[in-house]
Amino acid sequence: MNSPSGHLFDGLDKAQIKKLEGIAKIMHVEKGQLIFKEGDEALSVYVLEEGAVELTTFVEKDFELPISILRNRGDMFGSSALLAPHVYSLSARCAEKGIILRFESNTLKRVMSEDHSLGCKIMANLATYFFERLRETRQELKIHFKTLLMSTRS
Amino acid sequence: MNSPSGHLFDGLDKAQIKKLEGIAKIMHVEKGQLIFKEGDEALSVYVLEEGAVELTTFVEKDFELPISILRNRGDMFGSSALLAPHVYSLSARCAEKGIILRFESNTLKRVMSEDHSLGCKIMANLATYFFERLRETRQELKIHFKTLLMSTRS
Repeated sequence: MNSPSGHLFDGLDKAQIKKLEGIAKIMHVEKGQLIFKEGDEALSVYVLEEGAVELTTFVEKDFELPISILRNRGDMFGSSALLAPHVYSLSARCAEKGIILRFESNTLKRVMSEDHSLGCKIMANLATYFFERLRETRQELKIHFKTLLMSTRS
Repeated sequence: MNSPSGHLFDGLDKAQIKKLEGIAKIMHVEKGQLIFKEGDEALSVYVLEEGAVELTTFVEKDFELPISILRNRGDMFGSSALLAPHVYSLSARCAEKGIILRFESNTLKRVMSEDHSLGCKIMANLATYFFERLRETRQELKIHFKTLLMSTRS
């Protein structure tokens, strides 16, 4: 398990951050509350303000694999909402009582197209975010192959 | 093994494509030729023009795991060159004689910063590309966990 550091707001100037704050819906969440489920239509991007959120994936119907726990203010999740096919690839559940900012993807996309510089910075943040997650996930895959190799040799 | 469909040029207009073509170095490559090795400093992004390129990762010193084979004109690889820490996370080797376009990342970044719209489109293409690879890699990881679960049950 790792703590991703994806920040939607990275590199934005004050006016741009204000714009995003203006469209954020503030959610007060309870421990155990499900924010979204893997496979659901992805309609919103989320940013952690307070608390902790666990991301998991279904390996089987009755077995969920933990992917990461977000604990830092500004941690982004649900970013699948900004890219086709707009389906959540993980589930997100609150591990603690806290506060989450919700950005409806249609509203966010409108703001991004109106302010080209803002849109560009968010796309660059997304690219960096997915790239870092990809490197981590490939690393995990490697560890599994190594274990597999060792077990076939013993 | 899958065939990624990352296209550096997606969404660009004719003038922008011309700009990129203007900075591309054309490489005539032979079967078996190594383009870059995992862990190398990532200085260029590549686009397949003709032929086929295999991407692999080292699991151990003497064991390379195939990640994908690129066969389509326009397939991008080495895109780590555009993002920190600028290190190739895979190795790329020609599976066939062919032609590859090489874009030095410093030159490409300069063009991207001069033409903001071009830079923005390339960042969006990168975000989509890494997102798709991430989904595939997570899927593979899941399959390994499923196999592991089944083996512990039997």
